[in-house]
Amino acid sequence: MPKLLLLSSETDEYRKLIAQANLPNLEFVTDQADSEIILGEPRLLRDALPNLPKLKWMQSMYAGVESLMDPALRRDYILTNARGVFGELMSEYIFGYLLAHEKKIFQRHQAQLNKKYDRFESGWLRGRTIGLLGVGSIGAHLAGMATNFGMTVHGFTRSSETSQNVDKYFHGDDILKFVEGLDYLVVVLPRTEGTNQIVNAELLNALPKHAILINVGRGNAIDEPALSEALTQGKITGAVLDVTAQEPLPEDHPFWTTPNLLLTFHTSAISYPDDITRLFIENYHLYIAGKPLKYQVDFERGY
Amino acid sequence: MPKLLLLSSETDEYRKLIAQANLPNLEFVTDQADSEIILGEPRLLRDALPNLPKLKWMQSMYAGVESLMDPALRRDYILTNARGVFGELMSEYIFGYLLAHEKKIFQRHQAQLNKKYDRFESGWLRGRTIGLLGVGSIGAHLAGMATNFGMTVHGFTRSSETSQNVDKYFHGDDILKFVEGLDYLVVVLPRTEGTNQIVNAELLNALPKHAILINVGRGNAIDEPALSEALTQGKITGAVLDVTAQEPLPEDHPFWTTPNLLLTFHTSAISYPDDITRLFIENYHLYIAGKPLKYQVDFERGY
Repeated sequence: MPKLLLLSSETDEYRKLIAQANLPNLEFVTDQADSEIILGEPRLLRDALPNLPKLKWMQSMYAGVESLMDPALRRDYILTNARGVFGELMSEYIFGYLLAHEKKIFQRHQAQLNKKYDRFESGWLRGRTIGLLGVGSIGAHLAGMATNFGMTVHGFTRSSETSQNVDKYFHGDDILKFVEGLDYLVVVLPRTEGTNQIVNAELLNALPKHAILINVGRGNAIDEPALSEALTQGKITGAVLDVTAQEPLPEDHPFWTTPNLLLTFHTSAISYPDDITRLFIENYHLYIAGKPLKYQVDFERGY
Repeated sequence: MPKLLLLSSETDEYRKLIAQANLPNLEFVTDQADSEIILGEPRLLRDALPNLPKLKWMQSMYAGVESLMDPALRRDYILTNARGVFGELMSEYIFGYLLAHEKKIFQRHQAQLNKKYDRFESGWLRGRTIGLLGVGSIGAHLAGMATNFGMTVHGFTRSSETSQNVDKYFHGDDILKFVEGLDYLVVVLPRTEGTNQIVNAELLNALPKHAILINVGRGNAIDEPALSEALTQGKITGAVLDVTAQEPLPEDHPFWTTPNLLLTFHTSAISYPDDITRLFIENYHLYIAGKPLKYQVDFERGY
């Protein structure tokens, strides 16, 4: 009987949803010493690590598992993270902000406040090029939705070329070539050593002046002073940041008042118990069948 | 040799695009008396009607052809209107405003202005129900995009059930039943006798309190005082109007300051010469082959 421990602020909801699924042989436990499987939030998982002698598999409720990547922490278990569930949510956020920009939603509201019947023209996603910096399961979903809107999709990855909806892939040293022709650059990268400040002054300079940058990955990917400068000097047209290097954003951070920068305070996607439970159930069936689990984290790679 | 007259404020652009297509036998003329085919804007077409002895076919550059529907005007010609080209553009507008609502784009911007790192939750299109009042070619495109976002689609039409992406159709007396379960109501109706004030107090009362109304059809469809009252009293949560009964909206109209009402001044879609030319070329080939043209207007029905 595999023994499952839940480590979450929403334990009751998860317990109810998993119990409803009647998974074969699964037993809920509350004692860490007994636990073979853990479903939980990465920071609670990290704190529990020293007290889990029977641990075999940990399913993270979040995509980001950087708190478990410290080389000083044990790695003698299978870690799977939450993937394949955020694409739909991230799509709503990304295309919401891109459309708000193109439809000039703020400017039209201002015209209304000024009682001006002003018919300035909208821009359109149709025919534009979106660049995905990182094409995992979220990027693949974004690529599909971009295609639905009649857009061209460019993708930058380390090496993989898995999504069929990416029209052109770039790798390695081609990152400046990748951003050159973009109307929108969307950053969907995990936090790793390799992604630190990947969006730097040079990259921002290589983007077209009319480009919009959106970051829904992790704050470490962006050289924040360089972005502030690029926006202040009009080197790019706008940015939407769901994540920042420090969260909550410090009160005296320049981003609060950087022109053409919108902050959304890490709300672009949420781990909904329904979605995460669906993922857990799928992996549980693989686990008891002795098959490889989905969405295994590579401790060396960091995601 | 079919003789084509262009009646538009963008004659040069249209002439260039059509000339590039090298259509068989087509001759451009500038004399109304010679014209067999007209491609143009409905109001210019109406003014020209008495002076077109050889007129056989008129292709409108716009979807709305109400200026040609007056029973006092001649109807001895084939009228085709612009259809099948606005779906993509309307989709960007509709989903842009729905996502702006759900992602709370205005409220998040206000939080930023107040320097508040406030993580209030977004709403989601996924799982919501959108109702299309009118399912022509634009409605069909909206239904497809709603499906891409994981939504349920209800449609109200006179009788047709052509779009495969509509999950449930309603007709005739079922209009109140149609709006009952909706999260969003999108009006995509032409201006006809039958569509006058179809969105009245009774219908607005039948909508759920959290519903959002969007009108991209024609202003005649809405009982404007009833909508102002519904919004002021919080009977529905918001409205986005691209069209109004009077355009431009009069300076003293209550809509300028009605709470939770956004005005967009008839900008949701535009007749782009590229799109309209594509449509004209398709119909021209049918015309010279003696086949029925696409998007013929029924003068009795009014669209």
